[in-house]
Amino acid sequence: MNKYKLRCISCGKVYEPDEVEYTCPVCGDRLGTLEVIYDYDEIKVKKEDFGKFDNIWQFEKILPISDKAYKTPLHVGGTPYYEHKKLAEELGIKNLFIKYDGTNPTASYKDRASALAIAKAYEKGYETIYCASTGNAASSLAGLSAPTKLKTYIFLPASAPIAKISQLFIYGANVIPIDGTYDEAFDISLKIGEENGWYCRNSAINPYLLEGKKTGALEIAVQSNWDVPDYVLVSVGDGTVISSFYKGFYDFYKLGLIDKIPRIIGVQAEGAAAIKRVFDKGEPFMPDDIETHTIADSISVGKPRDVVKACKYVKASGGYFVSVSDEEILNAIYELSIKTGIFAEPAGATSYAGLKRISEKIGKDSTVAIVVTGNGLKDVKAIESFVNLKKVKPDLNAVREVIKEYENKI
Amino acid sequence: MNKYKLRCISCGKVYEPDEVEYTCPVCGDRLGTLEVIYDYDEIKVKKEDFGKFDNIWQFEKILPISDKAYKTPLHVGGTPYYEHKKLAEELGIKNLFIKYDGTNPTASYKDRASALAIAKAYEKGYETIYCASTGNAASSLAGLSAPTKLKTYIFLPASAPIAKISQLFIYGANVIPIDGTYDEAFDISLKIGEENGWYCRNSAINPYLLEGKKTGALEIAVQSNWDVPDYVLVSVGDGTVISSFYKGFYDFYKLGLIDKIPRIIGVQAEGAAAIKRVFDKGEPFMPDDIETHTIADSISVGKPRDVVKACKYVKASGGYFVSVSDEEILNAIYELSIKTGIFAEPAGATSYAGLKRISEKIGKDSTVAIVVTGNGLKDVKAIESFVNLKKVKPDLNAVREVIKEYENKI
Repeated sequence: MNKYKLRCISCGKVYEPDEVEYTCPVCGDRLGTLEVIYDYDEIKVKKEDFGKFDNIWQFEKILPISDKAYKTPLHVGGTPYYEHKKLAEELGIKNLFIKYDGTNPTASYKDRASALAIAKAYEKGYETIYCASTGNAASSLAGLSAPTKLKTYIFLPASAPIAKISQLFIYGANVIPIDGTYDEAFDISLKIGEENGWYCRNSAINPYLLEGKKTGALEIAVQSNWDVPDYVLVSVGDGTVISSFYKGFYDFYKLGLIDKIPRIIGVQAEGAAAIKRVFDKGEPFMPDDIETHTIADSISVGKPRDVVKACKYVKASGGYFVSVSDEEILNAIYELSIKTGIFAEPAGATSYAGLKRISEKIGKDSTVAIVVTGNGLKDVKAIESFVNLKKVKPDLNAVREVIKEYENKI
Repeated sequence: MNKYKLRCISCGKVYEPDEVEYTCPVCGDRLGTLEVIYDYDEIKVKKEDFGKFDNIWQFEKILPISDKAYKTPLHVGGTPYYEHKKLAEELGIKNLFIKYDGTNPTASYKDRASALAIAKAYEKGYETIYCASTGNAASSLAGLSAPTKLKTYIFLPASAPIAKISQLFIYGANVIPIDGTYDEAFDISLKIGEENGWYCRNSAINPYLLEGKKTGALEIAVQSNWDVPDYVLVSVGDGTVISSFYKGFYDFYKLGLIDKIPRIIGVQAEGAAAIKRVFDKGEPFMPDDIETHTIADSISVGKPRDVVKACKYVKASGGYFVSVSDEEILNAIYELSIKTGIFAEPAGATSYAGLKRISEKIGKDSTVAIVVTGNGLKDVKAIESFVNLKKVKPDLNAVREVIKEYENKI
């Protein structure tokens, strides 16, 4: 007997895991993304089972894998959860926590999903795995699959940040840099993957990715000593990460380990706010495509795949969507760095930009967590406007002059 | 009463902590770097006190700080320690472990030292802290001091990798990019720091940095369940990190928690092997300066400061020094990435290059740990020869052609 089943987010039809590979055959790829559902009565877990910095496999009883699954030995998850009293005070909220996922093996949140995808590829007997990605899912899949026997193909826009692209090559992946958008790379990858019989690690299409991603929420529950925040803010591209936060808290809520599900707030870049648009139009949550313009490459998605789930889950949590400008995102990177020492990539700081927008509305009695999904080292070009590399001669007087300038500025 | 004293590595004179700030006044800056010495009978610790992924402050009883010290809330240390059976087999050794410090807050080993430097700057009442650095100590100090009240000045060669330089600016440090070498930046910084009354976070000069760095060795002891490796390989620039490995194991050995000190092997770049040269010449270990040429910027040091300590400690451990070419370093980055999923910066992969050189000599009965000191994302330019960004039209047939090429290659 399987420990889980799959259910279509739109029509609600329930499948056994071996009946369907990716999405609901009735509703199709975008409306028919699947949820992994469990019989919570059958899952025996208690609070003491979990450690604050252990990797994601500590949650294996609540993951759709078997005991014998291939579990990457790389330390995925167990990332820091920082409290910031001073920043909370400045923002006029009761307390602020930052879940920082830049310390994952390939330096982004996406490692949580890739770990599951690789486990599933092994279980299902595939020899090749592929994905389309804005960059982080790509480098993550390449890194986690590198030491395995799997062959890896990566489709991504050639405009992705050079650090992310460099990771792909150094991990030995087969790279297809598409001279186009993420959305184009996505559609092409699906066709190519299907005709070659490869396993698909594409956002939303593969129902198990969200289950890997939900471990971020599970960790927040453990790291907050089971007293979860009132609000969790997450940046949104395809809609899977944000959905996974609801799902993680939902699982622990159904298992009786936490007594509420936080309100989930999705933060999008103004130039790539497809899901916010759908959410604001209201039910039924029908996909909507747009052209994108934003420096936050990781969430530069015009044709998001997990629209229905993201909207349904956010609504169920009592949350909503907000969008922020590129200028707000850049300022958020800088402010987060100097105030907390956390250097985030643009999409990573987007959640903080969103919090600055809504902190007044959230109010002084609420505890808030923001999720920083990627390390700033993944895209240093994005912050080049902050860098002023004026060389100084190796001469004491020249140096003294520069110091005088700094001291006068301060 | 102080829980520790300071002792000159050359003349052996012992000082109380408030008697001397940086180095032995008798022996000077390079011969007279200081050791922090403890009365081990007074330190009450047991194996059960320590967790595998906790941050460095879990070791506070064996650190030269008071109970009330400022302890950075950023998660420094508690980094992964990976076992690699397959790679060990390939190398013909009994077992291989990799201590990976690329997951520290600013993505390098140096965070361990900066944490101590900042604690000491607070304790001593300084308002400004500074350092000269090849890049990682700089970005580390900038990141960890950003959320504090300290003002920060950074001296580094303007040729440092752009990612490291970008970190400085986004953390709001006052940056002095010297149009010269690390060694020039170092000497200038000392003079400027002294005339301004700033606190010095320069390698070796400040005796407390090594104590922060030694937490890497302490973690290896904890993470190996107190059965420490026979050999530990570390890349070497100024000589402080390698000295810290000996010191960490020595502390735990004297405290009775481990039953041997591993042989410490220093790995230098052939184009920057100043300490190896001194070691090979033999005692007395007198500093020797050279011009440097290597892609491993973090260890591109021609005038190393901790020569005496590095040589004495390595000798005491029964270890030695080895040097590797830039080509070996580049190959080591690639091999480490594809075989383990760990992407290292050049200096980080240098330890692995060293292991490949000496694995036969080490032999099949030995357990070895290598230390990977920095994340590859810190210097993606170093690996640009591996990157082949040939754009592909967003067209199915164009993509099929590229895949055919990949498949024929495999």
